[in-house]
Amino acid sequence: MSLIVQKFGGSSVADAERVFNVAGIVTDTYKKGNDVVVVVSAQGDTTDDLIEKAKEINPDASKREMDMLLTSGEQISISLLAMAIEKLGYPVVSLLGWQAGFNTSSAYGSARIKRVIPDRIKKELDKRNIVIVAGFQGINRYGDMTTLGRGGSDTSAVAIASVMHADLCQIYTDVEGVYTADPRKVPGARKLSEISYDEMLELATLGAQVLNNRSVEMAKKYNIELEVLSSLTKAPGTIVKEAAKVEKMLISGVAKDTNVARISIIGVPDRPGLAFKIFSKLSAKDINVDIILQSIGRHGTKDISFTVTQDKMKEAIQVLEDYKSTIDAENIVCDDKVAKVSIVGAGMETHAGIAAKMFEAMFDAQINIQMIATSEIKISVLIDVSDADRAVTAIHNKFFPSEQD
Amino acid sequence: MSLIVQKFGGSSVADAERVFNVAGIVTDTYKKGNDVVVVVSAQGDTTDDLIEKAKEINPDASKREMDMLLTSGEQISISLLAMAIEKLGYPVVSLLGWQAGFNTSSAYGSARIKRVIPDRIKKELDKRNIVIVAGFQGINRYGDMTTLGRGGSDTSAVAIASVMHADLCQIYTDVEGVYTADPRKVPGARKLSEISYDEMLELATLGAQVLNNRSVEMAKKYNIELEVLSSLTKAPGTIVKEAAKVEKMLISGVAKDTNVARISIIGVPDRPGLAFKIFSKLSAKDINVDIILQSIGRHGTKDISFTVTQDKMKEAIQVLEDYKSTIDAENIVCDDKVAKVSIVGAGMETHAGIAAKMFEAMFDAQINIQMIATSEIKISVLIDVSDADRAVTAIHNKFFPSEQD
Repeated sequence: MSLIVQKFGGSSVADAERVFNVAGIVTDTYKKGNDVVVVVSAQGDTTDDLIEKAKEINPDASKREMDMLLTSGEQISISLLAMAIEKLGYPVVSLLGWQAGFNTSSAYGSARIKRVIPDRIKKELDKRNIVIVAGFQGINRYGDMTTLGRGGSDTSAVAIASVMHADLCQIYTDVEGVYTADPRKVPGARKLSEISYDEMLELATLGAQVLNNRSVEMAKKYNIELEVLSSLTKAPGTIVKEAAKVEKMLISGVAKDTNVARISIIGVPDRPGLAFKIFSKLSAKDINVDIILQSIGRHGTKDISFTVTQDKMKEAIQVLEDYKSTIDAENIVCDDKVAKVSIVGAGMETHAGIAAKMFEAMFDAQINIQMIATSEIKISVLIDVSDADRAVTAIHNKFFPSEQD
Repeated sequence: MSLIVQKFGGSSVADAERVFNVAGIVTDTYKKGNDVVVVVSAQGDTTDDLIEKAKEINPDASKREMDMLLTSGEQISISLLAMAIEKLGYPVVSLLGWQAGFNTSSAYGSARIKRVIPDRIKKELDKRNIVIVAGFQGINRYGDMTTLGRGGSDTSAVAIASVMHADLCQIYTDVEGVYTADPRKVPGARKLSEISYDEMLELATLGAQVLNNRSVEMAKKYNIELEVLSSLTKAPGTIVKEAAKVEKMLISGVAKDTNVARISIIGVPDRPGLAFKIFSKLSAKDINVDIILQSIGRHGTKDISFTVTQDKMKEAIQVLEDYKSTIDAENIVCDDKVAKVSIVGAGMETHAGIAAKMFEAMFDAQINIQMIATSEIKISVLIDVSDADRAVTAIHNKFFPSEQD
C-alpha cells in the first residue's frame, strides 16, 4: 500500500461536473488500496470573486482580514469534494489548513509553512478515510488564518508529501505535463516523461507556470517524486525527480516570460560600490531584480540595465528617481515591451555550444537580443515582446527538429 | 465603560452598503468608550446559496461536511465587516467561532454551545480592538466545525454576553422591536418598550420569530438584558429583561404560527397508558408535539389530536400508521391547513377573563376554534389557516383598541 498525495487546482474543481471528475480520480486511486491525501484549491474564480467583494468595501483592507476572507474559498471546495466522494460511496473527511496541522509564519498573504503536524491526517488515514485538505492556507502563532500566496496549494501538497514520506505527489493541472515549449504556441512541443528538480526550477522561474517554484524547491529538498498531469485526460504526465533521464536531449525546454520590464540607468559616473548601492535600495523595497547588465557608456560613465517584474516597474523607477541625484545619473529609462526567452537543460553543463546554437537560431530569425544571462543549466535572452513567440519557435525547432525536417 | 454585545443578522450585512451601515452602528458604540463585541450571521442568501451548491453535488451529504461548508458563510461576513470598520479608521479583528472559544456538542447541524472560553476575545478587547465574531458556529471535541442550527447567531451573541457579563446584548434585526402583533398584518400593532423573558419566550415559540428561543432562555438564565432593535432605523427597540414594566397591558402580544399541522387518531379503545405509548413513540423519533387534545369519541372510544410542525407531519403519520394496529385505532387523519394564534402576557396570571375576552373576539369574527391550549402566561387556539390573519386582527383590536374606537 502506498501513500499518494494528489493536488487539484481551482479549475479542476470549478463546477459540480469537474468536482465529480476529481472525485473519480481520487476514488480510483483509493480503490487500488492506496492511502490518499488530496489537496484542493478554491473553486475556479472564487478567490478572485472574494477579492472583488473586499475591494468594493475596502481596497486597503488589512492582510489579516484578507486572509480571513480568502481562506473561506478552500473551505467551500474541500467540503464539496468530500460530498462528491461521499456520493460515490467512499469514506472521506475534509480538513482545513489548521486542522491538517499547517503552521505558518505570520506574514499574512504570503506566509511560509514552518511546520506540518500531520497527527489529524494520520488519524483519519488510519480509519481508512480519504483525506481532503484545504491548500494554500494555514495558521500562524497567533491562531490566525494565513494564506501561502498564489500557487500555494502546490506547496501545501508537497509539504504533506514530505512530512508524511509519501510515495508520490501528483500535481493535477489543466496541462498534460511539462513540455519542451508551450504546446499552444509551438506545434512541435513535446511532453517530457521526466525532468530533474533543477531543470523544473529554472523552467518555473522562467515563466513556464506549470508548477509553483517553492513546491519544486521543497520537493527537491525532501526528495519527493512529483508527477505533473492533467485532471481531464488520463494520460501519464511528467515525473519530476532528482536523477531524471536526460532522454538524449541537450535541453529540456524553451520558456517565455512576458511579465518583465527593463530599466536602464544611463550615464552614471564610474565609482566603486555603485551597483551595490542601487540594488540594496531596491532590495529594501522588496523589489527583486533578475537579469543585470552593466556596460561602459559615453564619456567614461556606466550604463546599468536590469529587469524586474512588470508590477514592480513603477515602484522601482520611483526609488531610482529619488536616488538619481545622489548617484549623479544622467537619465533613467524603462521598457515593458520586452520578453525573456530561456532554454533550460542539465545537458548544458557537459555540452559546449548550446549558447551558440541558441543565438544562431535567433540570428536566423533576425531577432535582436537586448540582454543575455546565463546559469549552469539556463540561458536567458531579453528581446522585444513582439518577437517572443517567433523566438520560442525558432529556438525550439533548432533543438527539437521535427521529423519532417 | 460598558461592554456591549451587538448581533446583526444576514439581511443587515447583505451588501456593501449595509455592511457599512452596520460598521457605522458598531463604531458609534465604540466611539462612546464602550467595549464592543459584534456577532454576525452569513450575508443575505449566502447560506441558502451554499446549501444549493451542496444539493447539486450530494443531497444526502453528511452533516459534518455540510457544517464545514456552511461555516464559510460567516467567515466571509466577519472579514468584510472588519474591512469596513478598518476603512472607517477603527481598530478591529474578526474571529471565527472556534477562535472566539465556542466549544459545542458534536451534533453537526444543530450543535449546542457547551462552553465559551473568551480568552482571545478578552485579549483583543484589552488591545482596544472591536471584536467581530462569527455567529452560528463553533468547534466540537474532535476539532471539527459545527453549526448551531438556524437562528443560532442570536444564541452566539447571548452566550458571549453571558460569559463576559456584558452590560447589554443588542439584537439588530429588520424590525424595530417586539410588537403586540405583526405590524405588517395588523395596522394597530404597537411596539413594546419592554417585555419579560417569559413573555418573549412564549412569543418566540408561537411564531413571532423576532428572537431565537434558545437565546432568550439563555438570557433569562444568566439575566442578560437584551434589546431588539432595527439596524436600519435609529429608533430605540424593545428591552427584554426579567422585571419588565407591564405597561398597564394585560397581554403583551398576539402571535400567529402557520408552521403547524394537526394529526388526529380516531377511535382508539379507552385503555390506560395510551397517550404515553403514542407520544413516547413520537418522541423516540425526535418529533415534538405541541397542543394535545383528548376527547371521548363514539362507542366508548377516544379521539386524540395533537399538533406538530409541518415538516414533521409525514414522519409522525408514518410512525402512527406502523403503530395503528397495536393500539387498535380506527383511523388517522391530518390537516396542515391550520394555524395557531396565541396571546401572551404576564398579566394573565393576575387578571381573570383574558381567555373569555379572546374567545369573544373570535366569536365576534365568526371564527371556529378547533383546539385550545393554555399556560400561565399564554392562550393558544388552533384555527383554520384561512382565518388566521383575521383572528390576529380581531384579537389585537379587542385587547388594544385603537384611539379611533
